[in-house]
Amino acid sequence: MPEAPKADQPTTRSPRPAKASNLRGGIDLGGTKIQAIVIDDAQTVMGQARRPTPTKGGPQDVVDAMAEVLNAAADAAGVTTSSLRGVGVGSPGVIDHKAGTVANAGNLPDWKDPFPVVSSLGGLLGTKVEVGNDVDTATQGEFELGAATDYKSILGVFWGTGIGGGIILNGKPWFGRGAAGEIGHVVINEGGRRCTCGRRGCMEAYAGRMAMEIRARKLHDDGKKTDLFKIMEKRGRPRLTSGVWARAMDHGDDLAKELLDEAVVALGAGVGSCVNVLDIEAVVIGGGMGIRFGQPFVDRIEAAMIPHILASDRPPAVLLGALGDLGGAIGASLLIK
Amino acid sequence: MPEAPKADQPTTRSPRPAKASNLRGGIDLGGTKIQAIVIDDAQTVMGQARRPTPTKGGPQDVVDAMAEVLNAAADAAGVTTSSLRGVGVGSPGVIDHKAGTVANAGNLPDWKDPFPVVSSLGGLLGTKVEVGNDVDTATQGEFELGAATDYKSILGVFWGTGIGGGIILNGKPWFGRGAAGEIGHVVINEGGRRCTCGRRGCMEAYAGRMAMEIRARKLHDDGKKTDLFKIMEKRGRPRLTSGVWARAMDHGDDLAKELLDEAVVALGAGVGSCVNVLDIEAVVIGGGMGIRFGQPFVDRIEAAMIPHILASDRPPAVLLGALGDLGGAIGASLLIK
Repeated sequence: MPEAPKADQPTTRSPRPAKASNLRGGIDLGGTKIQAIVIDDAQTVMGQARRPTPTKGGPQDVVDAMAEVLNAAADAAGVTTSSLRGVGVGSPGVIDHKAGTVANAGNLPDWKDPFPVVSSLGGLLGTKVEVGNDVDTATQGEFELGAATDYKSILGVFWGTGIGGGIILNGKPWFGRGAAGEIGHVVINEGGRRCTCGRRGCMEAYAGRMAMEIRARKLHDDGKKTDLFKIMEKRGRPRLTSGVWARAMDHGDDLAKELLDEAVVALGAGVGSCVNVLDIEAVVIGGGMGIRFGQPFVDRIEAAMIPHILASDRPPAVLLGALGDLGGAIGASLLIK
Repeated sequence: MPEAPKADQPTTRSPRPAKASNLRGGIDLGGTKIQAIVIDDAQTVMGQARRPTPTKGGPQDVVDAMAEVLNAAADAAGVTTSSLRGVGVGSPGVIDHKAGTVANAGNLPDWKDPFPVVSSLGGLLGTKVEVGNDVDTATQGEFELGAATDYKSILGVFWGTGIGGGIILNGKPWFGRGAAGEIGHVVINEGGRRCTCGRRGCMEAYAGRMAMEIRARKLHDDGKKTDLFKIMEKRGRPRLTSGVWARAMDHGDDLAKELLDEAVVALGAGVGSCVNVLDIEAVVIGGGMGIRFGQPFVDRIEAAMIPHILASDRPPAVLLGALGDLGGAIGASLLIK
């Protein structure tokens, strides 16, 4: 989640007029892949496409890739992008809604300075574009269409490369000054393990996939046995993806098991802390790791969380995200009203 | 803070009609003392009184004591309690707003079952009574009249026997399902020190005055030198009050210093976690310990907190509660509109 104000506007609007189409586009811009969908007003996905996120070049290359993959999704739906009512993008980094830019998108290539995603992508697609924070749009998706439709106040927990949180209170997203929901950096072990953010003891230092990979590599280098990196190479992955972790677990890999056990403990403490602060009705767990490990791990995280909750007589519901792999793109499409 | 729903109503209203008086009463019902005030609509305290909270008997004895001390405050203001527009009570325990009861008031004598504070105290005082959660009313006091009048979204941190949190977002208190703001039980050290709540690693296990006393006694029993208990006895206190801790610090007591250093580290991590979740504009620090140790410790807590905040370029303001010792009672008086 970004560190800059998101202000009151939920999204950035381009000046293009709204179209009458009942079709919207949604793009989930991740550090690993770009997922695009075309969806109708009955929330049926009419077409979808995905491709790896460019690892070289810069923001324009990423925007070009987003246009390409949305074009492919539109092709699959049998329409042109310019016929869509609009396209919502769930993006990492710092979003400036007034300027229509995204900056400091950490996992994307050479993307430090603000880049005009709204105008650039809007020009390529021939329709209006709105950009929202990826975690917030995914939470909104689960809230409106997914696992949490029965609840008014929820915490979305997106367990992937890092751990992001989306907060909805009484039906409305809570952004704070733009950086609310940074639950990955809740401290669960003061003075403890170094986090990828540079701080110590954050939940993400134990449960973020990136931090888990760093830890696995260190322990492997120190002589601990693991097949994690063999599996990674065999599958042609540049890093320990959720799929690599899952495969290692299937093989009974001890190190993978140990690190995932630690991650569950950390998620239990960190999300439990959030529940003590917010007292929301439901927690929805998504993200690459959350979706890959599914209900069994949601159950484990819930079991690790409950002991930390003070109002122990009525803990929140803990739910697996229902929108699955397409959740990010579906949530982003909701930016288009 | 209570574990039961506070629902939407901020307070419990008795059926008595409102009076035209410009004077209100406020009672801060603490585990150690009962503080009462009479205050006018210009928010000038016209009379005040305090007495120790009964340590024996039951809820009726506590209610009798509340009536007695409010009568003394009214005497000081030159009025009778029945002439007041109403009396607000900031109470620990579980408040049932519909029933007008308080239950499970942990630090008060034999107070488990719901007791009808609104009707009982209202009868004794001859005016309407409203009861709110003590931490929430104190936070509202700082928000409306104290340190945080310039902000819309704040976290009140009440550092005393335990650590309670009051949350105001965009001008409105956030109660969750009644147990929001239980910041004392944010986990700062997973698997760490035993908390007075029975859990492990809570912020309160390191920074709550009760937990600090338990820790001090254990270390003292183990042979560690300290004057804490001598000072306590000399001052005729049954426990390590904030004043005892302050006196020991003034004497350069090593154990007091060590435990207060730990408390500051814990408060930094725990409150920092809350800031990462909520991204509020300001943190107000009050409570017995917070007020006793004042600005120098607020500065230390802020310094310990900043390194944990992800949005490090614009941390919240960290402020000492401005209403001081009377803050609880003044906040409670705001329950009367």
